[in-house]
Amino acid sequence: MNTLAYAATSATEKLGLSKINRREVAAGDVLIEIDYCGVCHSDIHMARNEWGNTIYPLVPGHEIIGRVKKVGPEVSAFKPGDLVGVGCMVDSCQSCSSCNEGLEQYCENGMTLTYGSPDPASGGFTYGGYSSHIVVSEKFVLHISEKLDTQAVAPLLCAGITTYSPLRQWQVKKGDKVGVIGLGGLGHMGVKFAHAMGAHVVMITTSPEKGEDAKKLGADEVLISKDSEAMNSHANSFDFLLNTIPVGHDMNPYVALLKRDATMTIVGAIEPLDPVSGGGLIMGRKRIAGSLIGGIKETQEMLDFCAEHNIVSDIEMINIQEINEAYERIISSDVKYRFVIDMKSLKA
Amino acid sequence: MNTLAYAATSATEKLGLSKINRREVAAGDVLIEIDYCGVCHSDIHMARNEWGNTIYPLVPGHEIIGRVKKVGPEVSAFKPGDLVGVGCMVDSCQSCSSCNEGLEQYCENGMTLTYGSPDPASGGFTYGGYSSHIVVSEKFVLHISEKLDTQAVAPLLCAGITTYSPLRQWQVKKGDKVGVIGLGGLGHMGVKFAHAMGAHVVMITTSPEKGEDAKKLGADEVLISKDSEAMNSHANSFDFLLNTIPVGHDMNPYVALLKRDATMTIVGAIEPLDPVSGGGLIMGRKRIAGSLIGGIKETQEMLDFCAEHNIVSDIEMINIQEINEAYERIISSDVKYRFVIDMKSLKA
Repeated sequence: MNTLAYAATSATEKLGLSKINRREVAAGDVLIEIDYCGVCHSDIHMARNEWGNTIYPLVPGHEIIGRVKKVGPEVSAFKPGDLVGVGCMVDSCQSCSSCNEGLEQYCENGMTLTYGSPDPASGGFTYGGYSSHIVVSEKFVLHISEKLDTQAVAPLLCAGITTYSPLRQWQVKKGDKVGVIGLGGLGHMGVKFAHAMGAHVVMITTSPEKGEDAKKLGADEVLISKDSEAMNSHANSFDFLLNTIPVGHDMNPYVALLKRDATMTIVGAIEPLDPVSGGGLIMGRKRIAGSLIGGIKETQEMLDFCAEHNIVSDIEMINIQEINEAYERIISSDVKYRFVIDMKSLKA
Repeated sequence: MNTLAYAATSATEKLGLSKINRREVAAGDVLIEIDYCGVCHSDIHMARNEWGNTIYPLVPGHEIIGRVKKVGPEVSAFKPGDLVGVGCMVDSCQSCSSCNEGLEQYCENGMTLTYGSPDPASGGFTYGGYSSHIVVSEKFVLHISEKLDTQAVAPLLCAGITTYSPLRQWQVKKGDKVGVIGLGGLGHMGVKFAHAMGAHVVMITTSPEKGEDAKKLGADEVLISKDSEAMNSHANSFDFLLNTIPVGHDMNPYVALLKRDATMTIVGAIEPLDPVSGGGLIMGRKRIAGSLIGGIKETQEMLDFCAEHNIVSDIEMINIQEINEAYERIISSDVKYRFVIDMKSLKA
């Protein structure tokens, strides 16, 4: 069986709950009936074992929206019927300095990922959101406002927090000139957030067509990265750059856009980046940083910010039966901007 | 004539002041009789036109110590007889946001370098410290304490401020674990400063012998970068890394040493750096930054810090006639840690 087909058929309803040993609802746990699950590019990497660490059976999915069905006796923050979300992680040590600071994604003892991760609670592995149900410790469950379009909220749990967190960490504020590099699942959320924070948002893309799309999402300006004259005219002018390019690339043209003391944060490319000129960093005391999703507290803050500013993801709804085609379309950047699976389709 | 020989013979006493058109003392200027001038690796790059932008005749030297001989009528901060210093720059626009913040080294209209730079004040070019005298605007002249060993103060004007500034910018404090990567002119000052700031200083070097030397300068610990087991045992443990390696190199092993949210600042390598793993930055929200010398205000602060903590450079004194041999020894890292030219030798 090819891995893509596997990803589809491995959903819990196909395999049966018993086979994948989903854990029982413990005292601090919440049982969630899943309504929608976003499709992240990392689902593809994992389903295809492209990072070399996949353990099968695998149930992908870490942009999960659903309703609480049942809670354990020690759960205080949730009750049956609540609209909730689960993102990329479902546990962490809760005792290291990162966890103490609310930065569970950097847990020094290793966070437990929502799928494909050894699960200390069950002794088995975690299984993600391409599923009818999931059991998660209440510490990793998020409150979702009923005000928003529920199905379009799902991608906020990964694409949303991944872009919101660095904008907050680097204190993007009203009037700042912020560049969002790349327009995909991450980039389109970056544009929406930076716009809502009051920044002057510049979409930096190779494609004029994507530039026009970005304007509809809130970009004030478009900078075509292949146009060296245009790039020069923006040199040393950006307060912050959010780099969502998902693969290694030449960062020097973007470093040149930064103001003195400004930062470009990488959120997409985990692979080796092309050689950066030391001089480009030195001459303006510039910075390149990384950022990984966000902590639970900040994820809740982001969801509340979205409710306040009426921000959701732009999505295309699919049934689980269409997942393999969706994966191919993601790979060819043919989606505006995130697929979300309607989990009712599992019962079809 | 080869460029090295040229660097030696081009000193002002050999050429005669008229030939290189050294400027007159204007209203805001200070005429300095130079006692000592440090030899920086960039003097070699410039003398040999290795950066491709050298204009001959060239008088290198930007680590200048001397006494005021004469001041213009508008000079208020200096008087004849004062012990003073001049570093890497002698002018800037004084009106851009960088200059207004005291960061003249990042002047948006371009600072005027101490040598080899078009000089708006004279209409010619600037000539540096391998010379009997220099005329500099008082705004770019530093006060030097009489308490310190004067000849060993010279390298503070470049090697000193280059390493002091990033330690301050990234707020290195008592108890921080600070790594200094590379032990040369820059690295040996980095060790002294970080030690004086109360940090736990780790010398990171390929050479156990250099490690032992670093301990004499104030390092608390030595980490041999070729020892992967030792490097692993220090993973995610450094609050700050000062990277003084002067050439492109693989930075990933050093990024791995940083704590979450910690920064490695590059002060030496202006050339392309080997590919950095995006994942290495993302997984701990780590940062790579650059830093260029320091502003005039901070340079004075650094010199005052040195007077307070009795910090000078470790030097080897030479006569100007030995400059070509000194250049060769710098290139082969055979100096502990900075050559300083005794300018009296110009009259020999």
